Amino acid sequence: MSSAPLKIAVLGAGTVGSQVVRLLQEQGADLSARVGAELKIIGVAVKDPARSRHGINPNLLTTDSKSLVKNCDILIEVMGGIEPAKSLILEAMQNGASVVTANKALLARHGSELLVAADKAGVDLYFEASVAGAIPLLRPIRESLAGDTVNRVMGIVNGTTNFILSKMETDGADYQDVLAEAQSLGYAESDPTADVEGHDAAAKAAILATLAFHTPVTIDDVYCEGITKVTKADMDAAESMGFVIKLLAVAERQAQDSIVVRVHPTMVPKSHPLANVRGVFNAVFVEAESAGELMFFGRGAGGAPTASAVLGDVVAAARNRVAGGVGPRDTSYAALKCLDISNAHTRYYIHIKVADKPGVLAKIATTFAENKVSIQVLHQDGHGDDATLVIRTHKATDAALAKTLDGLKKLDVVDSVIGVMRVEGEQGE
Amino acid sequence: MSSAPLKIAVLGAGTVGSQVVRLLQEQGADLSARVGAELKIIGVAVKDPARSRHGINPNLLTTDSKSLVKNCDILIEVMGGIEPAKSLILEAMQNGASVVTANKALLARHGSELLVAADKAGVDLYFEASVAGAIPLLRPIRESLAGDTVNRVMGIVNGTTNFILSKMETDGADYQDVLAEAQSLGYAESDPTADVEGHDAAAKAAILATLAFHTPVTIDDVYCEGITKVTKADMDAAESMGFVIKLLAVAERQAQDSIVVRVHPTMVPKSHPLANVRGVFNAVFVEAESAGELMFFGRGAGGAPTASAVLGDVVAAARNRVAGGVGPRDTSYAALKCLDISNAHTRYYIHIKVADKPGVLAKIATTFAENKVSIQVLHQDGHGDDATLVIRTHKATDAALAKTLDGLKKLDVVDSVIGVMRVEGEQGE
Repeated sequence: MSSAPLKIAVLGAGTVGSQVVRLLQEQGADLSARVGAELKIIGVAVKDPARSRHGINPNLLTTDSKSLVKNCDILIEVMGGIEPAKSLILEAMQNGASVVTANKALLARHGSELLVAADKAGVDLYFEASVAGAIPLLRPIRESLAGDTVNRVMGIVNGTTNFILSKMETDGADYQDVLAEAQSLGYAESDPTADVEGHDAAAKAAILATLAFHTPVTIDDVYCEGITKVTKADMDAAESMGFVIKLLAVAERQAQDSIVVRVHPTMVPKSHPLANVRGVFNAVFVEAESAGELMFFGRGAGGAPTASAVLGDVVAAARNRVAGGVGPRDTSYAALKCLDISNAHTRYYIHIKVADKPGVLAKIATTFAENKVSIQVLHQDGHGDDATLVIRTHKATDAALAKTLDGLKKLDVVDSVIGVMRVEGEQGE
Repeated sequence: MSSAPLKIAVLGAGTVGSQVVRLLQEQGADLSARVGAELKIIGVAVKDPARSRHGINPNLLTTDSKSLVKNCDILIEVMGGIEPAKSLILEAMQNGASVVTANKALLARHGSELLVAADKAGVDLYFEASVAGAIPLLRPIRESLAGDTVNRVMGIVNGTTNFILSKMETDGADYQDVLAEAQSLGYAESDPTADVEGHDAAAKAAILATLAFHTPVTIDDVYCEGITKVTKADMDAAESMGFVIKLLAVAERQAQDSIVVRVHPTMVPKSHPLANVRGVFNAVFVEAESAGELMFFGRGAGGAPTASAVLGDVVAAARNRVAGGVGPRDTSYAALKCLDISNAHTRYYIHIKVADKPGVLAKIATTFAENKVSIQVLHQDGHGDDATLVIRTHKATDAALAKTLDGLKKLDVVDSVIGVMRVEGEQGE
């Protein structure tokens, strides 16, 4: 062992924190060999140190985060929330410590600020665990693709909603019933808002977009639509067209100098690799100019998988310490414009209940044409009061689609618009 | 731009080299912004500088590799072959240059020696492009999983053989016919030995195993069996069982202190994600203790995808230069034993032509039992002279299987063994 021990402080001992501490203890010898120095836990900050925590030496437990932050070489922040996490991280960096965090909420709001602070302090800030759990995704984007131009990042980054949508698909069940089942299985929280409304996925989309496009993106820049309005009728329509419904996070270059970042339920053809990512798995597609299509697949959550990502970052930060430097910097030099959803350019599925009259198709087709939305596939089902049209369009802007929908609703031949959803992943896009 | 320009030298201007130079020129401003210094090409070494090379400034072309190697900050070696590549790389490192190479043949033979030399010289040695082209794979294994314990790496890492096997599967064609087609399409070389005999995949397996298990592994440690003996009968048998045949590279922990690394045709159930990786795509599964199963998917070859991986490494090495340091070191501290194939522990498919007599099954089952190979599925087809048995076993060692096959061939009820192949990727392994 060539170097002095590195002092590691841990903030939080929940699902992830307790696994991180366990692995640091169990794999101590291996980690030290890989780093070239001992990794020594100096303390684990918790709210209630009296509570016994399986596998953590009680002597390490403390409420005194402040002194941990002052005395460590590497801070592992797995407490979550914006404050006091943010202040403690900033203080640690000012004291010269490198920081590893899994805190997506914090990064999605203050990521660029924290990266700048790390740069100023000459320390590392790593956060692989904040997006897609164990899947190595941020390091490949930050480093492996650093010589390429990313055009699009598109993925399933929330396990709870993917579990619910997969179940709705296979069991033909309603959203509310599957949500209740997911809650009883522990896959959904008792207050599921952050997952089912897409906020969790939106935070991850902001982090991914920041790194992929070298541009500061916060959660406020992300269009966000959850899965609570996905109906059995949508599922049936998707099935009959050979599609599945996934909650996708999409960050894409819209033009040379702008991007759009969005989270919404999406119809994806069954032949697309993302369609086969079921249950609590996560997967992210990256499309780069030279590299072409890449996919990263794995477990997106859970104590041990997330802890694996945290420890990978800890080893990286520790190796940099031993080498006497810091890892590569990320800058938001490109500063692309982050446009709102009306600029997004996608295909759409539209399901309309129509009157069974002559001339229906002509009127509807005219409305699409007037708004410059081109129809790709049209399918007419039923007769009389049950007549419906299922339409998939070519790519159009969200703004053009909104106008088309307004126009459709005003037509006397249209009874109601039963379903509208974006479509991604078709060949030839 | 805060730092002095970094001098880049390129050895080789073939398919990959010419794309690397093109991208360095086209994306110069972006790359400089990401690095914090200009990347300046000082020369491109080729055999014949008089030959015009599309997109490369002729003034950069030279035959004088020696002086490039002496004067660069970062050497990009994309010439291939063992010598003079190895000597030039060592000389560049001794002169203080970091090295980026795509040379799998060299790394599979001398990887550990080169890593030690880089460490001694205090420079970076990166080689992401040497395995699975554009797919970020080595950096995630070296860095993202540095805090975890890898148990297994298993993947499709040769596009040519995957194209041939996919074609044999979908067209029901013979190996020789598909090989001829692949050669006419440019997917296979006129001398296809390195691909079809598995040598290319074996080199990549050695590189993956070295990094994943922190152990020096060379191509001589890798068991290697190509696809030239895969028959239409094997394809048909796989299809009837719901399997496909893939050339897999597998490196796995066999016990606490040993590994086995092997390349061979393998039956994989259609439900496994690797079964759906077709044509020239590559994909690699990694199983780690805490992270669980991860998969990396993308283009495994081609000028631009490989150049993307090379440039990612160039940016990483350049950023380290600007920061005044080097990236994390890899050591082979674990030095696990690399056991030969007789120790490998897998399932098998065995196809036997049998006599249509009473007692056949009993005799065959006894032979398996005597060698402690347990039968998982047995299927009897045909009658009279065409009677065959298709058997899939539970996991057994290669040595036990070899003995079983010897025993089977001695039975009077066995006419011949038509096919034997390893099986991977079934549930519950």
